[in-house]
Amino acid sequence: MTLPNPYDYRDPFAGVSPLFVERWSPRAFDSTPIDPDTLQRVMDAARWSPSCFNEQPWRFHTATDATFDQFVELLQEGNRGWAQHAGVIGFLSVLTRFRHNGKANASAELDCGAAWMAMSLQARMEGLYTHAMAGIDHAAADRYFGLDGEQQRVLIGFVIGYPADRGQLPDNLRQREQPSARKPLAEIWQRY
Amino acid sequence: MTLPNPYDYRDPFAGVSPLFVERWSPRAFDSTPIDPDTLQRVMDAARWSPSCFNEQPWRFHTATDATFDQFVELLQEGNRGWAQHAGVIGFLSVLTRFRHNGKANASAELDCGAAWMAMSLQARMEGLYTHAMAGIDHAAADRYFGLDGEQQRVLIGFVIGYPADRGQLPDNLRQREQPSARKPLAEIWQRY
Repeated sequence: MTLPNPYDYRDPFAGVSPLFVERWSPRAFDSTPIDPDTLQRVMDAARWSPSCFNEQPWRFHTATDATFDQFVELLQEGNRGWAQHAGVIGFLSVLTRFRHNGKANASAELDCGAAWMAMSLQARMEGLYTHAMAGIDHAAADRYFGLDGEQQRVLIGFVIGYPADRGQLPDNLRQREQPSARKPLAEIWQRY
Repeated sequence: MTLPNPYDYRDPFAGVSPLFVERWSPRAFDSTPIDPDTLQRVMDAARWSPSCFNEQPWRFHTATDATFDQFVELLQEGNRGWAQHAGVIGFLSVLTRFRHNGKANASAELDCGAAWMAMSLQARMEGLYTHAMAGIDHAAADRYFGLDGEQQRVLIGFVIGYPADRGQLPDNLRQREQPSARKPLAEIWQRY
């Protein structure tokens, strides 16, 4: 019996690193705790990301055992069921203004995305997966972290964890539990 | 004679991959062309990035020999001098609305940042460096690529290229031509 290849839906150009192609965002996590040093490597990887004027507008907030359930409550209901099984839950917030002059930083969200990706890729190197969530209670999360919602605000929630069998998911999520396909490269890249 | 370590300014936590720590954004590039397959791998790496609802809101635009000088003209003057020596020049634009319902995509810029980071890291694996530029003529770039500036707009310009000796840079840039430091991890990551 041949096991199905979970990356059948993906058609990378030859030679693209599996680090990118074999990264995806599962929902089936097991609750194995993440070793503190491992987590520190994952978070530290984000630190080296590029940002406009080296502003480093990313701020990460993660739960400990004492606050885990409170963090889960900051998610929209549809995400709570599966996300609560991940080893780590957190939020990423942005500083929207440059500290040196108070002006709006037009690259702040893009730079946060770069840091988020670095974190996700170091996680893959550690045998971990990440999953970002737009479905969060933004106002409640801003309040929880003491952010004013203008100069600083939460962008996404996320989990980090070890993968588990999809069988633990409810039917509707189990059927979607596989790496998703992508548009052909020609749709996202144009040469002039 | 011991050569200086260019990463002296960087203090990663032990075990963080050099892929992140040894990525930086130089300005001294040599004009060696980038092999088409190599460039295709770099662009394709971006394709596998995560995005909200798998929207893939990133669009990359790169110059060919015929348009290279026109692309350089879309940069702010301070970036033209050094950027014109890179092998590839391009722009990254964003789709700001979900195609399935026309609503604003609050994660679009963050997702573009993730794709940009993937591209930059595949570039490092190829011996290449990238450098993003916020200093561009946004209105002219939107016009050049036929973007309306609302539903689609240019976020950043970028170059990809092989590194060169910093001696080719003018004085003011030569002194800054080294990997920059970062804030301590404790300033960007809080546990609750």
